Amino acid sequence: MRTGTNHLFIPGPTNVPESVRRAMNVAQEDQRGPEFGAFVLGLLRDLKPVFGTKQRVMLIPGSGSAAWEASIVNTLQPGDRVLMARHGQFSTLWAKMAMDLGLDVEVVDVSWGAGTPVNEFARRLGADREGKIKAVFVTHNETATGVTSSVAAVRRALDEAMHDALLFVDGVSSIGSVPFEMDEWGVDLAVTGSQKGLMCPSGLGILAVSDKARACKGMRRGFFAFEDFELQAAQGYFPHTPPSPVLHGLRAALDRMAAETLPAVFARHARLAQGIRAAVAAWGLETCCESPSLASNTVTAVRTPPGVDARDVIRIGFQRYNASFGSGLGPLAGKVFRIGHLGDLNEGMCLTAIALAEMCLREAGAKVTLGSGVAAAQAVYEPRAEMALAAE
Amino acid sequence: MRTGTNHLFIPGPTNVPESVRRAMNVAQEDQRGPEFGAFVLGLLRDLKPVFGTKQRVMLIPGSGSAAWEASIVNTLQPGDRVLMARHGQFSTLWAKMAMDLGLDVEVVDVSWGAGTPVNEFARRLGADREGKIKAVFVTHNETATGVTSSVAAVRRALDEAMHDALLFVDGVSSIGSVPFEMDEWGVDLAVTGSQKGLMCPSGLGILAVSDKARACKGMRRGFFAFEDFELQAAQGYFPHTPPSPVLHGLRAALDRMAAETLPAVFARHARLAQGIRAAVAAWGLETCCESPSLASNTVTAVRTPPGVDARDVIRIGFQRYNASFGSGLGPLAGKVFRIGHLGDLNEGMCLTAIALAEMCLREAGAKVTLGSGVAAAQAVYEPRAEMALAAE
Amino acid sequence: MRTGTNHLFIPGPTNVPESVRRAMNVAQEDQRGPEFGAFVLGLLRDLKPVFGTKQRVMLIPGSGSAAWEASIVNTLQPGDRVLMARHGQFSTLWAKMAMDLGLDVEVVDVSWGAGTPVNEFARRLGADREGKIKAVFVTHNETATGVTSSVAAVRRALDEAMHDALLFVDGVSSIGSVPFEMDEWGVDLAVTGSQKGLMCPSGLGILAVSDKARACKGMRRGFFAFEDFELQAAQGYFPHTPPSPVLHGLRAALDRMAAETLPAVFARHARLAQGIRAAVAAWGLETCCESPSLASNTVTAVRTPPGVDARDVIRIGFQRYNASFGSGLGPLAGKVFRIGHLGDLNEGMCLTAIALAEMCLREAGAKVTLGSGVAAAQAVYEPRAEMALAAE
Amino acid sequence: MRTGTNHLFIPGPTNVPESVRRAMNVAQEDQRGPEFGAFVLGLLRDLKPVFGTKQRVMLIPGSGSAAWEASIVNTLQPGDRVLMARHGQFSTLWAKMAMDLGLDVEVVDVSWGAGTPVNEFARRLGADREGKIKAVFVTHNETATGVTSSVAAVRRALDEAMHDALLFVDGVSSIGSVPFEMDEWGVDLAVTGSQKGLMCPSGLGILAVSDKARACKGMRRGFFAFEDFELQAAQGYFPHTPPSPVLHGLRAALDRMAAETLPAVFARHARLAQGIRAAVAAWGLETCCESPSLASNTVTAVRTPPGVDARDVIRIGFQRYNASFGSGLGPLAGKVFRIGHLGDLNEGMCLTAIALAEMCLREAGAKVTLGSGVAAAQAVYEPRAEMALAAE
Repeated sequence: MRTGTNHLFIPGPTNVPESVRRAMNVAQEDQRGPEFGAFVLGLLRDLKPVFGTKQRVMLIPGSGSAAWEASIVNTLQPGDRVLMARHGQFSTLWAKMAMDLGLDVEVVDVSWGAGTPVNEFARRLGADREGKIKAVFVTHNETATGVTSSVAAVRRALDEAMHDALLFVDGVSSIGSVPFEMDEWGVDLAVTGSQKGLMCPSGLGILAVSDKARACKGMRRGFFAFEDFELQAAQGYFPHTPPSPVLHGLRAALDRMAAETLPAVFARHARLAQGIRAAVAAWGLETCCESPSLASNTVTAVRTPPGVDARDVIRIGFQRYNASFGSGLGPLAGKVFRIGHLGDLNEGMCLTAIALAEMCLREAGAKVTLGSGVAAAQAVYEPRAEMALAAE
Repeated sequence: MRTGTNHLFIPGPTNVPESVRRAMNVAQEDQRGPEFGAFVLGLLRDLKPVFGTKQRVMLIPGSGSAAWEASIVNTLQPGDRVLMARHGQFSTLWAKMAMDLGLDVEVVDVSWGAGTPVNEFARRLGADREGKIKAVFVTHNETATGVTSSVAAVRRALDEAMHDALLFVDGVSSIGSVPFEMDEWGVDLAVTGSQKGLMCPSGLGILAVSDKARACKGMRRGFFAFEDFELQAAQGYFPHTPPSPVLHGLRAALDRMAAETLPAVFARHARLAQGIRAAVAAWGLETCCESPSLASNTVTAVRTPPGVDARDVIRIGFQRYNASFGSGLGPLAGKVFRIGHLGDLNEGMCLTAIALAEMCLREAGAKVTLGSGVAAAQAVYEPRAEMALAAE
Repeated sequence: MRTGTNHLFIPGPTNVPESVRRAMNVAQEDQRGPEFGAFVLGLLRDLKPVFGTKQRVMLIPGSGSAAWEASIVNTLQPGDRVLMARHGQFSTLWAKMAMDLGLDVEVVDVSWGAGTPVNEFARRLGADREGKIKAVFVTHNETATGVTSSVAAVRRALDEAMHDALLFVDGVSSIGSVPFEMDEWGVDLAVTGSQKGLMCPSGLGILAVSDKARACKGMRRGFFAFEDFELQAAQGYFPHTPPSPVLHGLRAALDRMAAETLPAVFARHARLAQGIRAAVAAWGLETCCESPSLASNTVTAVRTPPGVDARDVIRIGFQRYNASFGSGLGPLAGKVFRIGHLGDLNEGMCLTAIALAEMCLREAGAKVTLGSGVAAAQAVYEPRAEMALAAE
Repeated sequence: MRTGTNHLFIPGPTNVPESVRRAMNVAQEDQRGPEFGAFVLGLLRDLKPVFGTKQRVMLIPGSGSAAWEASIVNTLQPGDRVLMARHGQFSTLWAKMAMDLGLDVEVVDVSWGAGTPVNEFARRLGADREGKIKAVFVTHNETATGVTSSVAAVRRALDEAMHDALLFVDGVSSIGSVPFEMDEWGVDLAVTGSQKGLMCPSGLGILAVSDKARACKGMRRGFFAFEDFELQAAQGYFPHTPPSPVLHGLRAALDRMAAETLPAVFARHARLAQGIRAAVAAWGLETCCESPSLASNTVTAVRTPPGVDARDVIRIGFQRYNASFGSGLGPLAGKVFRIGHLGDLNEGMCLTAIALAEMCLREAGAKVTLGSGVAAAQAVYEPRAEMALAAE
């Protein structure tokens, strides 16, 4: 019998704010009625600033992965070469999907904990005189390792190579939580889901598409055909029945973000993440992220010390403390546990995560001083620290 | 300013029962936690009787259309010939999807209002000595016209032709509301969504797959790959983040159906539909369905009299009476309006639909006697009528 | 196993609108926090126009009856004489409460179906030269019989007798649904609950108090002491923990009423009630109300014909049709059933009530023509009838 | 713009569990229908073990204070002498209500932080040879100071004095969270509310009444008359419209408590409270409670050090950290802040409270070491501590 709040610190689906939850408590409605269309058009409009674009946003029933498939099948053709790096579970799965859909994937494998290998990308783009590379895929925030890469740097590499490839970005665990500037960075396809920075349950893949990408021909497709979505989206409808409670939740989430303002949302994520990292350091542990400059503001993957199985940390959290941490994926299984710190979050929630993680680590065998991580994070969250941060 | 209940009589998404709605009011949860898996396994188990199968059921984030794509890409290959009829908007869209996905679709066009042309199918199957037809597609209930076809008859045609083609069935607006016997009828792929007879919001495509279908090779695929779903489903997980509120709703819906019992659910739909049809007859109007034996127990498409635009009926219902009727689709636009009568429904709701339709029809110009349809349906719903029905 | 909507046609608690329901889906909160006070002050402000007053409104945890006790104990003293009529269950219970609390109740018993006996009141007030009558109690809308009395007429009687008695009004089933002009009518204490015209669940008694009433001394009291409520209400707080979900619901309900506008709310109730009465007439039945001019726009008490037990009508409604009608109370038990038609209501809901009542009446033994009541109400609700009504 | 969870650590209303919240998401219903009565009878039955009684429980719309008035007016008469102590805000308010209702209150004033003065009570009871004291009032848990008194000791004092007075207990912030044995302790009237240990929103006072108390005559009363409640309760109905969402919530709350088992609920409260107190000690601060043996397991009142205004602690918590702590009441204003730790609670939530309180204390000027309180509580919550606790 679990009691009390379930402390949810996975990197998505994230905690749903009260106003979003309330908004989803709806009776069924006619998704072909005149009011529904106007409602959806408002969503499409208000999602644009979250992506940093003035171009177009699409809502794809399913999930972020569905949106990925949509982005590929509508723009590329079987055999098209794409350049991408594998440096975590999600970039690996994305590469697999690209291969499964028939692309010729030129993979750069780097260590799990590294970011996008921009120099290597630059080299290969520069060498691709014939323009065989049709698209470059960048995982903005690798959720498995807590690594954020610079999309702007990849854009510079493309520009310097005067390369015309499309730029695809997986922003599933970044968009809405950290700055994302689609138009400024020249991104052609950016994907996220409803269940991360947008603070809703899953159910929607969300996709921003540049004019350049939209003009591409794409491959054989059915459910995901952009042309079907666009035809309906003009009136705020969908070609397939959409998950309407999530749409209502998204309305409330966008209203929250507008009220907080996007810069404040991003600053909050940065500050809260800094506290989490300070705690990890205070424990004497390391994160999975190879360089501080790559540290993600939405998820931190904590390496357990030798002899301590990260799966035990997670199991103890769940069984004893009604807490949910993210697990280590693939080769990181047992070696890291992850703390998600994105979406509707505040200092108290981060301190809870840290306090519980301390106890779980100890019971799993790690030598961690009780209260040490909490104190380190508190020092970050105290107002004088905040002022110092603001002064940086 | 609308007041009072929105009277929702579209053929899906259908009215959500209170217990389903309550069940969906959940906090976010870890969909990789140990309790979640057990929960999902229970859903997969309890969906089987609804499909009439002991084989396998899959839950596909998205919608019924997503499940359709999943069924095609996992079993057929580009260029494979499939036999299907077009006799309404949804069978037409399905044929389009099959073509878009590269199948060689042998279409039999019959009138919108007719059922599956079983004799013609039998003839073509008999003629297909070389077994070029890899699958036969049957729209069990054509939602656009209110026509229910016999899947069993198609199975007999296949058997009599000793033909080995797969049998695909679109049961989106039938499964859960009328008898469906996948195993008995030898259906290989049957598809529905969460938002019709299963009384939830949309968000899930639901698919039952025969062993024979599962052994097929299929074509290039990503998001919809059965192998990914099956790998995860063994523990009750998903390869892509699922829409968890809908899953909780589905649990409540299945519990309701079990409490009412499936035979009682089907009998209720039959009885309520009979009342709707009696009302249409009392108005002196006709349904879109060409033969009484094909009349659907989940949706009735009512033909407006000459000079009366069915779009006006729908518009008046929405604007004046806070009522939502289904529209005529494609060539039926303006000629029919549809009354959905499936899911969580009772006599009072059907009488509301009829009473409001009478008023809308009159205001749109039809000569309909006030109260006439209501009286005809009441006569069906009164207990003595019910006893007579039971005695049939 | 009940299926479909529960058709709720009791005269309160009434159907809760979606926006109210959504608003009540809240996490627990600190009812001493700074935001809570501002929120409550807004409620107190926006309730005033509903009562037609610029004086003061109080929210009393409990129910309308609790508010009644509050109104008595804060203004009158044991032995004080009050003048009131008994003409239904609720006026009778009110008289009993007044007696229980030690008042000297001068009762005028009139038939159940009559209104406030204004002439008799006038006579007694005129005869009360010494001003022994401290208060006159008027049941604005007797929920048991569907009779609305004129408060303005009682005020005129008081004025003509130049009598200084306080004027108390039970507006539980009228306020928010029909015009109520506290200040114009010189009402001193007016009471309602959250669960009728205000479309929320029960939990709150709502009370408007004139300056004159507030200046009274009252009797011994604890929980209901105005002084405690007023002290806290200045900051928007409560002396006792309030039912906060209902307060949030009330916010949404007041917003709905403001959006529809009060005149439109009242006109809607009048029009819908007219249809109900037309149906009763078409059935060849009578209402409990003795004169058409007294007919309530919020509830209609229908007399069943001789030999037909109204309890059977109600039982059949509940068991067979998932419908809830109000029962005959006290001496009216078995003789009337009541149709509540107040709050968040529209034409379709009223037609449902009528259609189901027809079937229940027949099964209970009444000779009622199917569809007859529905047709009569539809004729009222059709636009041309509406125009005619507007032209009156 | 507040983000993230509101951290609610007031001593009631308490955090509402998910299952309770879900259960309250209901459509309006007929509270005179046959199913409703059976539902309420189940509640009355299942509340008895929570009070430790086999006698009778009553549900009073309103709040705990309403139940207090009900208990007094139904058993005592004006002028009756009652013995009680004032040692905090709530015992003081209770004494005021007793006075307001006309009782002759023999008050023993002790310091705020002391418990019930059992010896003094024993002395007075022994001296009351004529049995003028009709009732003894005991505040089981003084919510303002975090002091739990022994009801059993008062019972022993009564027995030793062979005194026949009724024993009234205010269990608002104890019942459901700590052991309560009404029948064993010979309690005659015990009162709580829905919004504390019972984990629902407020809206209901809950009252257990001994046979002896029920046989008393009482004073003038209206809304609160036991006879009216009992008459209706026999069928599971209410004399006044009850707040039905709260009743549904209460059903879910009782189911939770049964699943956890009452002994486990009590053990959990004891363990979590121990951690809170360890934190206070680690900060070098004191609680308001004068003796460790009186320390409440549901609320801790923390004294701020000289020069630190406790109101600042609370304000900072609310404004900066979206946290709600309880304030110091009456003479304790500015001197204490309170941490509520009752109801649906777990370790993580307590650690959050402590971590945030540390930061608020510091910003308000207290010299508290970051992490110190958290570490102390963690040491209590760790499994080895738990085992040690179990071994005591």
